[in-house]
Amino acid sequence: MPPPQGPDQDNRDIVARLVDLGRRAKQASLEMARANRGAKDAALEFAAQLLGDRSEEILAANRVDVDNAREAGLPATVLDRLRLDEARVDSMAVGLRQVAALGDPIGEVQSGWVRPNGLRVTRVRVPLGVIGIVYENRPNVTSDAAGLCIKSGNSVILRGSSSSIESNMVIEEVIREALVKADLPQDGVILVRDTSRQAASEFMKLDGYVDCLIPRGGPSLIESIRNEATIPYILDGDGNCHVYVDRSADLDMAIRIIVNAKTQRPSVCNAAESLVLHQDIAEVLLPRLIVEMPQVELVGDARAMAIAPQVGQASCDDFAREFLDLKMSVAVVDNLETAIAHVQRNSSGHSEAIVTSDYKAANEFASRVDCAAVLVNASTRFIDGGELGLGAEIGISTQKLHARGPMGLESLTSLKFVVHGDGQVRV
Amino acid sequence: MPPPQGPDQDNRDIVARLVDLGRRAKQASLEMARANRGAKDAALEFAAQLLGDRSEEILAANRVDVDNAREAGLPATVLDRLRLDEARVDSMAVGLRQVAALGDPIGEVQSGWVRPNGLRVTRVRVPLGVIGIVYENRPNVTSDAAGLCIKSGNSVILRGSSSSIESNMVIEEVIREALVKADLPQDGVILVRDTSRQAASEFMKLDGYVDCLIPRGGPSLIESIRNEATIPYILDGDGNCHVYVDRSADLDMAIRIIVNAKTQRPSVCNAAESLVLHQDIAEVLLPRLIVEMPQVELVGDARAMAIAPQVGQASCDDFAREFLDLKMSVAVVDNLETAIAHVQRNSSGHSEAIVTSDYKAANEFASRVDCAAVLVNASTRFIDGGELGLGAEIGISTQKLHARGPMGLESLTSLKFVVHGDGQVRV
Repeated sequence: MPPPQGPDQDNRDIVARLVDLGRRAKQASLEMARANRGAKDAALEFAAQLLGDRSEEILAANRVDVDNAREAGLPATVLDRLRLDEARVDSMAVGLRQVAALGDPIGEVQSGWVRPNGLRVTRVRVPLGVIGIVYENRPNVTSDAAGLCIKSGNSVILRGSSSSIESNMVIEEVIREALVKADLPQDGVILVRDTSRQAASEFMKLDGYVDCLIPRGGPSLIESIRNEATIPYILDGDGNCHVYVDRSADLDMAIRIIVNAKTQRPSVCNAAESLVLHQDIAEVLLPRLIVEMPQVELVGDARAMAIAPQVGQASCDDFAREFLDLKMSVAVVDNLETAIAHVQRNSSGHSEAIVTSDYKAANEFASRVDCAAVLVNASTRFIDGGELGLGAEIGISTQKLHARGPMGLESLTSLKFVVHGDGQVRV
Repeated sequence: MPPPQGPDQDNRDIVARLVDLGRRAKQASLEMARANRGAKDAALEFAAQLLGDRSEEILAANRVDVDNAREAGLPATVLDRLRLDEARVDSMAVGLRQVAALGDPIGEVQSGWVRPNGLRVTRVRVPLGVIGIVYENRPNVTSDAAGLCIKSGNSVILRGSSSSIESNMVIEEVIREALVKADLPQDGVILVRDTSRQAASEFMKLDGYVDCLIPRGGPSLIESIRNEATIPYILDGDGNCHVYVDRSADLDMAIRIIVNAKTQRPSVCNAAESLVLHQDIAEVLLPRLIVEMPQVELVGDARAMAIAPQVGQASCDDFAREFLDLKMSVAVVDNLETAIAHVQRNSSGHSEAIVTSDYKAANEFASRVDCAAVLVNASTRFIDGGELGLGAEIGISTQKLHARGPMGLESLTSLKFVVHGDGQVRV
């Protein structure tokens, strides 16, 4: 009988190739898990050096990607994310050195105790094993994610987009070379070269080989992970971040915080998108705010519109929308209760802030709003691994399992029970 | 136009009813999260009392379930799991009181630090929100799982099997009554009354309402969760637990541990299923072991068979099989390296034990074997929430994300960043 042909056979070939990558990554992960800090930091330092040494080659590959993307008619924002220059390659190297400077999470004894029968129980921090990163256009993710996975003793399989494949291939090569120089297995970092949709779909089902999937991308990627992945995953979701200004707020502080949260970098997930104003201060605050950030388009409810003619009419959806732009929704509320209810209803589970001078209001808001991070009297822009002191971050989780909020090295680890006895048996 | 009819309409009705349950559980979860320990413990105590007061009613409902199951021809093991008696209802009440006696995990400040700009960062333990438990025949899970969810400040939606629906309905009623007596929302505990396959399938897709799914059941349930669930889940997997006897082992200790691990309760996941013997001790140990546990059927590799004629031939699959019975696989290996490789290859990621007097062998095995729990010189039967001192357990996770190994109350919680400032903005 002739061998089968057509799409089925294609799919079997794709799966076979992915399983091979998975096997190699799994095998390498056993060595990565045992590597001491010295070897892991050496690999990161070598990789940083090699990124510098081979930057010409990286930039040449990147020009091919950018040219292809331009020919394919991809939008300017994508081209910008895709494009590397000397400074961006430099900052990839700086990032790897920053990760090297972080403490090694592996081997930490998180807790330990002795049982009445003399069993000594410890919980020890260990790597997850093999991490799968699925990402879109930014080639720097290749290096950033690989650095964090190496430091935390994991293998990583990287699945970037087709638009950045040429850049990614050179960056992967550089990091694999660095691993070998540090006496670590080169398969600690593997790039999936097949960038087809079909391969992405099969990659998400590689349980048994990949221990955890971390998507870095937009809503359509998240949606396909939700629907297709059989590997456990950590979602890096949207941020519809609110700033609620309480009646007792210091209004100057409120304005500083809102302007910073909205305008300092509008395109990121921890930028504020929604403003909630207590009715007692709305009439004073809103006009002042409009003067302070004239570049921001405001859309609001009827009460906000009645206060300031510059406020446009918000659709219902606007209150739950992540604009990622110089646009903000405004709602005026009766009191703290209705403020919390409004935030709760529209929260994406990322970061929510209150500006207040009232002890009880601060406590109520902080304890009752259900999200990854609550801020009292501070800008939402601080909810970021670096700003909170976690070191580099692999993303910001808006889910509740395993990791919530900015994910540092610890989120790439698990805890293992290690129990020492002297022959104990159960009665 | 007439309203649509048929399967599509049925499915929409099922989804609408589930969404309604989800909404109610979510709403209740906001109150559950704020409840202090006093109220939660009171609810558990009331529920324990009511289980006693209404045990006649529970047993009557259970008799209906058992009769129906018998008529439907369900096997004896299922009937046994399904059947309640006074003692089993008592032990449900005892379980609830034990959970009440545990510390309250909610509100714990897991860690905290101050940033250079004065921001005070804390990570505070909070409930997950709404937990979905999908389980099979045992009606005691209804009460056990509800107790742990109440104590950890969560709402729970319980989806038991059709075979135990009558028992589950009465138990749910009892617990909801207890919640109300403790001034907590009755929708903190909700049983899904539709036990159809279709409803189970839609339930697994209730993201937005259910924060975490915990299946308690066999491989087919796990498989359908993997393939269908869009809610994050924690898998309570199989245990193919190994005991490796090193050349340096105290053989008396080894025999005590193996006999205990294999025979003390063969039907549970932390019972040992596979024996790995260093070649230097196999010839002495194996015959002695056969004398000590004559009731256990051994199947092994060629080397084990050559040592003892009582050892049958193992199929390749046998080394990875969870027998849950008085049966055990035996492999003879050259050294520690091959022992670790054998365990690694066949491990289900649950619990693995070594018996040894050698310092290096103990460390190598403990650090390199990739599973939820490693034991040195102790029976695998200790890997259980109660035995390790975690209090009650909701299951034993064999996955690496969020919870690994026995899952106590902490596994039903998440950490939230709470950041206090004095007007800080990002520069």
